[in-house]
Amino acid sequence: MTTASKFEAVATSPNAERAATCDASVSPTGNMELLSQEEVRRLHEVGHGDLYELFRRCALAVLNCGGSMDSAEEVYRQYPDFEIEIVQRTRGIKLRVRNAPACAFVDGVMLNGVREHLFSVLRDIVFVTSELYHPAENGQREGDYESIRVREHSDGGEVKNLVFDVLRNAELLMPRSLPRLVVCWGGHSISREEYDYSKSVGYHLGLRSLDICTGCGPGAMKGPMKGATIGHAKQRISKGRYIGLSEPGIIAAESPNPIVNHLVVMPDIEKRLEAFVRLGHGIIVFPGGVGTLEEILFVLGTLMDERNSRVTVPLLFTEPAWSDGYFRKIDRFLVDTLGEQVRDYYQIIEDDPEAVALAMKQGIASVNRNRRKTRDAFYYNWLLTIPQGMKEPFEVTHETMAGLQLDSGLPPAELAVNLRRAFSGIVAGNVKDKGIRLVREHGPFALRGESGIMQAMDRLLGDFVAEGRMKIESQQYDPCYVIESL
Amino acid sequence: MTTASKFEAVATSPNAERAATCDASVSPTGNMELLSQEEVRRLHEVGHGDLYELFRRCALAVLNCGGSMDSAEEVYRQYPDFEIEIVQRTRGIKLRVRNAPACAFVDGVMLNGVREHLFSVLRDIVFVTSELYHPAENGQREGDYESIRVREHSDGGEVKNLVFDVLRNAELLMPRSLPRLVVCWGGHSISREEYDYSKSVGYHLGLRSLDICTGCGPGAMKGPMKGATIGHAKQRISKGRYIGLSEPGIIAAESPNPIVNHLVVMPDIEKRLEAFVRLGHGIIVFPGGVGTLEEILFVLGTLMDERNSRVTVPLLFTEPAWSDGYFRKIDRFLVDTLGEQVRDYYQIIEDDPEAVALAMKQGIASVNRNRRKTRDAFYYNWLLTIPQGMKEPFEVTHETMAGLQLDSGLPPAELAVNLRRAFSGIVAGNVKDKGIRLVREHGPFALRGESGIMQAMDRLLGDFVAEGRMKIESQQYDPCYVIESL
Amino acid sequence: MTTASKFEAVATSPNAERAATCDASVSPTGNMELLSQEEVRRLHEVGHGDLYELFRRCALAVLNCGGSMDSAEEVYRQYPDFEIEIVQRTRGIKLRVRNAPACAFVDGVMLNGVREHLFSVLRDIVFVTSELYHPAENGQREGDYESIRVREHSDGGEVKNLVFDVLRNAELLMPRSLPRLVVCWGGHSISREEYDYSKSVGYHLGLRSLDICTGCGPGAMKGPMKGATIGHAKQRISKGRYIGLSEPGIIAAESPNPIVNHLVVMPDIEKRLEAFVRLGHGIIVFPGGVGTLEEILFVLGTLMDERNSRVTVPLLFTEPAWSDGYFRKIDRFLVDTLGEQVRDYYQIIEDDPEAVALAMKQGIASVNRNRRKTRDAFYYNWLLTIPQGMKEPFEVTHETMAGLQLDSGLPPAELAVNLRRAFSGIVAGNVKDKGIRLVREHGPFALRGESGIMQAMDRLLGDFVAEGRMKIESQQYDPCYVIESL
Amino acid sequence: MTTASKFEAVATSPNAERAATCDASVSPTGNMELLSQEEVRRLHEVGHGDLYELFRRCALAVLNCGGSMDSAEEVYRQYPDFEIEIVQRTRGIKLRVRNAPACAFVDGVMLNGVREHLFSVLRDIVFVTSELYHPAENGQREGDYESIRVREHSDGGEVKNLVFDVLRNAELLMPRSLPRLVVCWGGHSISREEYDYSKSVGYHLGLRSLDICTGCGPGAMKGPMKGATIGHAKQRISKGRYIGLSEPGIIAAESPNPIVNHLVVMPDIEKRLEAFVRLGHGIIVFPGGVGTLEEILFVLGTLMDERNSRVTVPLLFTEPAWSDGYFRKIDRFLVDTLGEQVRDYYQIIEDDPEAVALAMKQGIASVNRNRRKTRDAFYYNWLLTIPQGMKEPFEVTHETMAGLQLDSGLPPAELAVNLRRAFSGIVAGNVKDKGIRLVREHGPFALRGESGIMQAMDRLLGDFVAEGRMKIESQQYDPCYVIESL
Repeated sequence: MTTASKFEAVATSPNAERAATCDASVSPTGNMELLSQEEVRRLHEVGHGDLYELFRRCALAVLNCGGSMDSAEEVYRQYPDFEIEIVQRTRGIKLRVRNAPACAFVDGVMLNGVREHLFSVLRDIVFVTSELYHPAENGQREGDYESIRVREHSDGGEVKNLVFDVLRNAELLMPRSLPRLVVCWGGHSISREEYDYSKSVGYHLGLRSLDICTGCGPGAMKGPMKGATIGHAKQRISKGRYIGLSEPGIIAAESPNPIVNHLVVMPDIEKRLEAFVRLGHGIIVFPGGVGTLEEILFVLGTLMDERNSRVTVPLLFTEPAWSDGYFRKIDRFLVDTLGEQVRDYYQIIEDDPEAVALAMKQGIASVNRNRRKTRDAFYYNWLLTIPQGMKEPFEVTHETMAGLQLDSGLPPAELAVNLRRAFSGIVAGNVKDKGIRLVREHGPFALRGESGIMQAMDRLLGDFVAEGRMKIESQQYDPCYVIESL
Repeated sequence: MTTASKFEAVATSPNAERAATCDASVSPTGNMELLSQEEVRRLHEVGHGDLYELFRRCALAVLNCGGSMDSAEEVYRQYPDFEIEIVQRTRGIKLRVRNAPACAFVDGVMLNGVREHLFSVLRDIVFVTSELYHPAENGQREGDYESIRVREHSDGGEVKNLVFDVLRNAELLMPRSLPRLVVCWGGHSISREEYDYSKSVGYHLGLRSLDICTGCGPGAMKGPMKGATIGHAKQRISKGRYIGLSEPGIIAAESPNPIVNHLVVMPDIEKRLEAFVRLGHGIIVFPGGVGTLEEILFVLGTLMDERNSRVTVPLLFTEPAWSDGYFRKIDRFLVDTLGEQVRDYYQIIEDDPEAVALAMKQGIASVNRNRRKTRDAFYYNWLLTIPQGMKEPFEVTHETMAGLQLDSGLPPAELAVNLRRAFSGIVAGNVKDKGIRLVREHGPFALRGESGIMQAMDRLLGDFVAEGRMKIESQQYDPCYVIESL
Repeated sequence: MTTASKFEAVATSPNAERAATCDASVSPTGNMELLSQEEVRRLHEVGHGDLYELFRRCALAVLNCGGSMDSAEEVYRQYPDFEIEIVQRTRGIKLRVRNAPACAFVDGVMLNGVREHLFSVLRDIVFVTSELYHPAENGQREGDYESIRVREHSDGGEVKNLVFDVLRNAELLMPRSLPRLVVCWGGHSISREEYDYSKSVGYHLGLRSLDICTGCGPGAMKGPMKGATIGHAKQRISKGRYIGLSEPGIIAAESPNPIVNHLVVMPDIEKRLEAFVRLGHGIIVFPGGVGTLEEILFVLGTLMDERNSRVTVPLLFTEPAWSDGYFRKIDRFLVDTLGEQVRDYYQIIEDDPEAVALAMKQGIASVNRNRRKTRDAFYYNWLLTIPQGMKEPFEVTHETMAGLQLDSGLPPAELAVNLRRAFSGIVAGNVKDKGIRLVREHGPFALRGESGIMQAMDRLLGDFVAEGRMKIESQQYDPCYVIESL
Repeated sequence: MTTASKFEAVATSPNAERAATCDASVSPTGNMELLSQEEVRRLHEVGHGDLYELFRRCALAVLNCGGSMDSAEEVYRQYPDFEIEIVQRTRGIKLRVRNAPACAFVDGVMLNGVREHLFSVLRDIVFVTSELYHPAENGQREGDYESIRVREHSDGGEVKNLVFDVLRNAELLMPRSLPRLVVCWGGHSISREEYDYSKSVGYHLGLRSLDICTGCGPGAMKGPMKGATIGHAKQRISKGRYIGLSEPGIIAAESPNPIVNHLVVMPDIEKRLEAFVRLGHGIIVFPGGVGTLEEILFVLGTLMDERNSRVTVPLLFTEPAWSDGYFRKIDRFLVDTLGEQVRDYYQIIEDDPEAVALAMKQGIASVNRNRRKTRDAFYYNWLLTIPQGMKEPFEVTHETMAGLQLDSGLPPAELAVNLRRAFSGIVAGNVKDKGIRLVREHGPFALRGESGIMQAMDRLLGDFVAEGRMKIESQQYDPCYVIESL
């Protein structure tokens, strides 16, 4: 469709004003308070080895809590001198930061919320790398955090155990607590009206004692939390949970907003998606862009799998009047690609925050009954089966993108897998560090497939561009993809 | 200056749409959970005697939590059928409401925050009337809650003990807690810019772990709490305190906003003012109208009393750039009336929320040192001396208003007392039920005094009218006063 | 029956070794932390007026926590220089003790448990005197705390409200908590075997999550608490409640044992008895002496009142094999005096601690059902009616004792009232300060009545003497009474 | 010295009365509440594989909470039909027991304390086997839990990390808590006087807010906890910690007493000893037998290591008057074998519980200073170096016992290692299941060494036998060892 002429411009802007910074040394929170000397030693290694750059970038992302950029590159460039050091002491560790974004500090002292996020990042990277993963053998390139890969799973059940392990280690799983966690998906780049609408939905969810889980970042990931905060306050709920699930590739583009009181950095996008659907008790989708589409395709491809016929997952699509039929377009795309039966799995509610909250409350009541009947845990959806293709990490390159089979001859579940990958690749090309670099070097990704499907995609993506849903500063969006019908 | 031609209009509007309502029966919270049978019996009497109308109106005010009106009359008229009944049971009480504002309910269940406010109202009225006050003997007029009056105090120290008793009974006093409570004063009818500014100041106070105390209601009473909520969330302070101090005469016009998590209904305006200055550790004043002036005069008249020379009370006036010198005008008025030395007691900071928060943080640190040195409690300023004239309830009538001596020959402290009363009377005429009725019946209050002082007042009040600071819906404000120079 | 030749000996013993003592200054706990200046002033007066000696003696009793004497006189004599001062500060009070029993201190610091007891004593005396009572007009004699008397109650219901007020002020009433409080009565002077048995019963109660309430002191008042402590520990109950209800006349003879974690000093013996039956959910009686008989007669006289026919109060009498039919003798006495139907109200279980605990568990389950049915509170038995004669304070003198009508012609309920008074008088003559003085000065109390009843009493009291149940050091017990048949 | 003629007798006694039993199904506590499906699967395997017998025996030991036997064999024989099953559910596990000792139940429901212990056992066995150990390859014999062995440690620091991991997983390490944990060692078979003395010491420790850690079981392991419970109650310390450290080989002989509120089953005796000295802040030794000697030699051999010259570990030996110079004999033995300088490392206090508690309080204050100075953690003594020989698991067989070099030519530290092993072997021969079997089959262990040392040992062991310190029922103790001088 287009070329990528603007990337050079992004790379330079040498006169960008240097942002205000702070130095500080902070003590650990949570389970990073109790480390063995062996763990401290391994952490120290992390602080000097291949993982250092990964950790540094995630740390910068959470420290940049006041930021409103969605470009990882921009964030990194704004704080070129930022350093973070893991200081080893007999009794544990400290983190020392230099040239960190000043917005994370009050009168020279780091915000407690940011400090918690910082140690959450450390906790998750260390846990995942030392307990579960082995670093890529060929980790020769600097900052090559994409090369961290799950070890071979002989057993298909292992991913759900791994996701469970990460979430439990983050102290996120609460036995003997009733279902009340609503996952909210939607765009980070949305209009003021859509943001206010997501806030209003969150408010009505909070009034009904429901908690919120999103992917961190601005827009539809922040609105529902802000709204729920007020709803919880009115109901005197002091332990409301605002859970943010991120992953190393996206965290810099979608900094956890400060209301998030539980941050987890999942190892990759696929495990992050799995965490959403196993942890949450219902899902609400607001208008968004390609990332939102990826999420919708993930959950629908999963729910359509016949092995999940006994599992209850309430799924609502909602938008304000302002959005003018956004979800009707999505609905058309889904029916065009996955068939009419896809409509069995979601409900669209337009411009009625209270109705959304009520429907979700009822949906979660049915989840409660379903879990009791199937004897599944309330805190983790063990019985859901994620199709194999959805679980496998998708390495975004020009080759893999070009190789995606987008053909109506495929079974809907399989097509959903490939469509999700296609949108996932576009997300990477838009906002992820590595994706942006690939597109800058080699031009936009090419997607090829059956004409009907490609037209549906082209129309949808065109709408996204037209409505400014691709990137926050998108006056001059240059697509990172080209669509070609076979 | 003007006459009061519009009052008839207010009285009618018979076709006002009837608001949505709910019925419910709610169980007590806090110390209303444990009542003796004798107390239940007395409460039951309250529910049927002279106090019933007072209780009913305050209850309606807190139930009307979504309202944005500042006219008590309007609120009462909108819910004419509202009833509240104290139901007696062996083991305690319940409250049954009928035709209550629907905004206080979610799916038919009363908001916990509103339920708490409801029992706070009951607690305070019952405590005050049964423990401390005796009802007016001549309580012949319907709803004459203004006639509840403190019994004669032989001992000048009794009011501070009484205020202490009310606050302790409300479980508001916390031993072994450091000074951190900032009183925020300012108008309920302010511009969006001023509201956002007060929110920003509250945010920076919250980031510094400071709590907020206001007079309930919208505008500058709500903004700092909302801001502090976010600041506290970022610092992971889950027990932030948002204290609202009201009184029966004002509560309907200034409904407690839902963020208030400690509501106390003080017996009258003078005790409410005393509660502010004894409970709070520092005071910030935002732009406002006559009520704000009343508060400023109360605190300055008190601080200027030489018996308070050893007491530390940080007092800051602050405004956004938008307000364009509001406090410079106040400053001029204060100097014109109370003399140059009044400037020793306050500091003006313009358009810098962070500087305000920092100055208050430092001010409270000096309060901490002062309390330690004088061995005063942190939770209550025992050593402050309130001048006698400030403490005495001022019954607003045309006679008492006309009788106020406003003369530069008076000592500044005495003049401050009379000026406070003058502004207090205008507040009553603007928004209090009884004051509105008096003015409607007999025309505006006349204020007479020395020419210099009256001109200063006239200028200031004129500015308030011009800037819309008198009432929320003030397109056509008809003054409830006339100024006459002697 | 006898004379009182030993009392002189008790009065002297001038060479008694002076016990080790400590001086200290302690800060308040509980609701004594937050006092108004007015309250501090009143307290200060207490510390210097007629109440001082009452407070001093109760304070000494709780400080003497390691003591094993049951003679108030002995305790007072052992610490003749003991002083306690209420120190007034701006922000509250401190207590300063001089020459206090060293057993209340560890390394010079007062035990937290004793400190709590000390402020409980202050709290209750102050609350009762300042809120509820008015000091005796004729308070001419020093330390005449017996003359503190309840004001006239026009309303028969007032005592239960007063008892409620005292208990609530002591923070003892817990709304929303299920019935689980077992009152244990029995002697302070019992055999090792009986003590161990009471401990075993307490252990099995504790294993069943039941809490204990006794009258403080050694013997059967301490055993069940010690046993329950272990039972609670095994069940991981960290908030087990060990409630001690005392009164000023008995506290010196029955010092609260250190396991008591809620001490309340009721105004007099009648209100203490009323507190037991309204607060507890079931009653277990162990072997004891005249005080135990007083308690048994109080509860039976109450339960036999037909107005209580709908009220459930499980009442168990139990003893170890060693006691050899103690309760069979009590049973006979009760049948002889109150008639056969008295047996409907209690159950005797011999030598089976586990059976006692099980029966009590089932009894409390029926209390739970009864309270739900009658809609009474769990935390206070409002519906129980205490006969008027049981509630009236009985002033023990030679005249009042001699004047008691003990005649089978009386209705059982009325006879129970007089029998209780008779035993209450003997308790006073045995261990209460004032009673001991009366008997020393005027010889034993004379009790006169119908032959059958007097013989039953004489037999029972003779058994108590023979079994050493009158006083702890009773090798040479000189009865403080004579029994005369009319 | 003797032969082992009684072992046959122990093996039979076929008519032993069958003890009362219960069946039950219990839900997990602590971190066994949140298990992944993978962990549940592994647990299920545990329940059927080689580890089953190990788990079953430890489970029986904690269920046998009312037992007073110190012979593992006896315990196992009394409940031959006892079974425990790990029941797999979607959301986690349950444990189902059959024919379990009735003493662990109240009205058919398992005691919470025992339930916690049961899941502590499961937690520790599973954690250790799945996370840290690999099962013995040659695990051919049933119930051969002695063959679980630590994997080769290339790094000498690994054991302390492993011990840390086990303790942290047991939620025993508390950051930000001051030093207050006193390890109490001493015999399980002691006199009533010695038991009461240990209780009194515990009481005085508890009064000083100190917590207790012992090896579980009766005697000197139980007394200090019982005493501390009362001391804590008097000081209103509701979170007193009573930590029991056991190991699979000893747990059946030394069942955790019910006061233990943190039970950890360390993998073997050496790691248990390391846990004691790294977790505790000071050590008190009461009279005991060979196990106590083993502990004394372990800590002295460690403290005498010159690498520990900067580490503070208060070590007190104490006994009541009744014991009549027990520690003077120990002192002589230590000086005879390890030399005069050994006396620098301990202090003996005879018959003065309060002095012991005061000395320990001061000792722990110096630990506090030492940890601050060396920047070591309060919750774990990282800086202590355990000599290699103390750390290595010692497999007790006739060969290894006979091979111990007991020669004054060795450096004291090395001799201490061998002496500890010698005593460790005698413990095994006395009370451990496997040791008893070895001695029954092959006769007593032979110990050979230099004459002076062997005489000192012989004299000490003879005293232990004479004083009944070898076994609880030791009327007819047949030594499991022979001493031979070379």
